[in-house]
Amino acid sequence: MSDNFETFLRECVSDNRLQRFEEVLEHRTRHLTVVLENIYDPFNASACLRTCDCFGVQDVHVIESRNEFNPNPDIALGASKWLTIHRYASHNAAQDDINKADQPPSPPVNTATADCFSKLRADGYRILTTSPRQDSTPLKAVSVTGKTAIVLGAEQVGVSEFAIAEADDRIHIPMFGFTESFNISVSAAIILQQITSHLHASEISWQLTDLEKQAIRELWVRKTLRSRYEPLRRRFEYQQQKQQHQQPPQ
Amino acid sequence: MSDNFETFLRECVSDNRLQRFEEVLEHRTRHLTVVLENIYDPFNASACLRTCDCFGVQDVHVIESRNEFNPNPDIALGASKWLTIHRYASHNAAQDDINKADQPPSPPVNTATADCFSKLRADGYRILTTSPRQDSTPLKAVSVTGKTAIVLGAEQVGVSEFAIAEADDRIHIPMFGFTESFNISVSAAIILQQITSHLHASEISWQLTDLEKQAIRELWVRKTLRSRYEPLRRRFEYQQQKQQHQQPPQ
Repeated sequence: MSDNFETFLRECVSDNRLQRFEEVLEHRTRHLTVVLENIYDPFNASACLRTCDCFGVQDVHVIESRNEFNPNPDIALGASKWLTIHRYASHNAAQDDINKADQPPSPPVNTATADCFSKLRADGYRILTTSPRQDSTPLKAVSVTGKTAIVLGAEQVGVSEFAIAEADDRIHIPMFGFTESFNISVSAAIILQQITSHLHASEISWQLTDLEKQAIRELWVRKTLRSRYEPLRRRFEYQQQKQQHQQPPQ
Repeated sequence: MSDNFETFLRECVSDNRLQRFEEVLEHRTRHLTVVLENIYDPFNASACLRTCDCFGVQDVHVIESRNEFNPNPDIALGASKWLTIHRYASHNAAQDDINKADQPPSPPVNTATADCFSKLRADGYRILTTSPRQDSTPLKAVSVTGKTAIVLGAEQVGVSEFAIAEADDRIHIPMFGFTESFNISVSAAIILQQITSHLHASEISWQLTDLEKQAIRELWVRKTLRSRYEPLRRRFEYQQQKQQHQQPPQ
């Protein structure tokens, strides 16, 4: 048995599965990420996650200030298992104002979106909101040289005013029909296909670092082992202790 | 009042609406068409129609041999009104064999798919089926110099064996994750986006002929007028007859 617990875990997963992890990791990226702001339709939620996995986008940021994110497992086909999902719920910003009765109330803040954007900025992302308006930047003209986050908004109402105001740019997919917007999961797919296709053909270093790959590989091993993980961990620790006791004193 | 009935009808539609018709007609195409084989999920059905309209694909062929096509109007957002939808239901091919009791029965034929493909061939289309298998032709390598029909298959089971056997080629969208297929409406969007983007930048004459534009424009005028169409037609005929009676004999 290996001394290193993660090496030991990897010994519990089939070679085929480990080989698949490596193939997928080669195309995984954190250069591009997706933000789903208040998407409530289970079909859209699931199709977006499935599309992120298919195009190698590892991180999905889910904002749930107005609607709960509720993917349909029949449509997601287990995609969320392999993604890193960051969730943001609203906390009550107005509550602070009650404690400051002598001051005028602050304007309403979408605290979940604000928290998400703060995290993205701290991680070096440029934030782009999607818009059906054809006067924003067309998808093909978008520069993705730097780390890029794409914000998709809720069904019917789209991206929030707060998100639009705080973002770096608005982008759109050119449309040629009577219908004035794409379905959300369709928008996500078109945008990710275009950007990842561009990244794969570019000199941009969009791939994960070795450290990032290692962390995600270990996460995937744990997800694969599921309920077997804890018993295996305990068995490993027991055997480690036994080995230490059996070693002759130096 | 105009002598020509269609010119008269156009006089009943606002200038803004007519201007919109012309803008949309400029990007409408019959060079590319979509075949939906036994799609049953209302969300997928609707999202596919909406995407066809957005990318200017005028004709959609709907095969209903196993499942009924049932788009959700909240998701289609009226897109089907502007499209030309061709429907194909199965007729009982086995019935012919009963009448030929002395002959061995023919192998089962998907008559709806066969009828659809016969029509497409007669109209000069090359037929491509979509496949999640990564050993088929990748989307970017597909030639669309000639008229092209893209077949999307039912949820879970995909395109029928019959369609695969009868088609000219199988194509796939490259995927980089654990999930082994895209959602159907997502596949449709990625394929249409790539092909129409290629067509718009090419020398291929993908646009409608003037005659095709005229027929579609007239159809759209009728769809816009809806229940007002018949009374207007009768009023026009009445006025035409009245004018003829009022004319002095030559």
